[in-house]
Amino acid sequence: MSHVEHTTLDPLGADESRALLMTAEIGRLAFTDEHGPTVEPFGFALEGPHVVIAVGARSGARAAVGQAVAFQVDELDLVHRTGWSVVAVGTLHRADPETSARPEPWPGGDDERALLVVRVERLSGRRLRRDPRRAEPSASR
Amino acid sequence: MSHVEHTTLDPLGADESRALLMTAEIGRLAFTDEHGPTVEPFGFALEGPHVVIAVGARSGARAAVGQAVAFQVDELDLVHRTGWSVVAVGTLHRADPETSARPEPWPGGDDERALLVVRVERLSGRRLRRDPRRAEPSASR
Repeated sequence: MSHVEHTTLDPLGADESRALLMTAEIGRLAFTDEHGPTVEPFGFALEGPHVVIAVGARSGARAAVGQAVAFQVDELDLVHRTGWSVVAVGTLHRADPETSARPEPWPGGDDERALLVVRVERLSGRRLRRDPRRAEPSASR
Repeated sequence: MSHVEHTTLDPLGADESRALLMTAEIGRLAFTDEHGPTVEPFGFALEGPHVVIAVGARSGARAAVGQAVAFQVDELDLVHRTGWSVVAVGTLHRADPETSARPEPWPGGDDERALLVVRVERLSGRRLRRDPRRAEPSASR
């Protein structure tokens, strides 16, 4: 392939990962349902370090309470080949009924919602950037 | 909340899910690494019903060969509250060295790539749409 882009994936620290997580509106929850692994998009709110989602009655995520899950957010620019991805890993719990977190009820789909919380134990991320040193054409090759 | 949107989540059949999968450029692979569940975005290509991705040397997905994984694609319109999400579930294998699939090497990040394939056993999806009947204001409430 003559047009392979030269890009670099930089790991992100927890502080930067958290700052990026705060900018996102939608994330994707990876969990296991009766058919195996699956992923569903959700709106979310942060409550301290934890991720609160509003889950409809028909979402398989309701049955995932107690599981170790991953909640991933990203911003990807396919044209410029830049972007970032952040993953929060923790156990899924029912939210404290007293929670003040008000996650966007997205995707919607029904009215009966349960608030669930990912109690985040590990936050990590990666940023993709173009590497200018390597992107320069080399006449010697 | 006074501005709850009335939306409907419709399940999608395998044919429609596959047609939508073909329109996507990037998907997100949910697998388990040494830290637990995680999600990574990848470019992909389809080979028959299966999903082929190009995985860099530092991706944890290399160690997920043999796992049941989920590959999810979506298109979400947060403003109009519409969109869809499709999930392909299957076992992750090394791709046949003879494969003609040429997945976009995204996210990039290094040059040494392995082609992996999700041998899809189950394809499902959901479409979110606004429900006009329920979105009309009701003066009687």
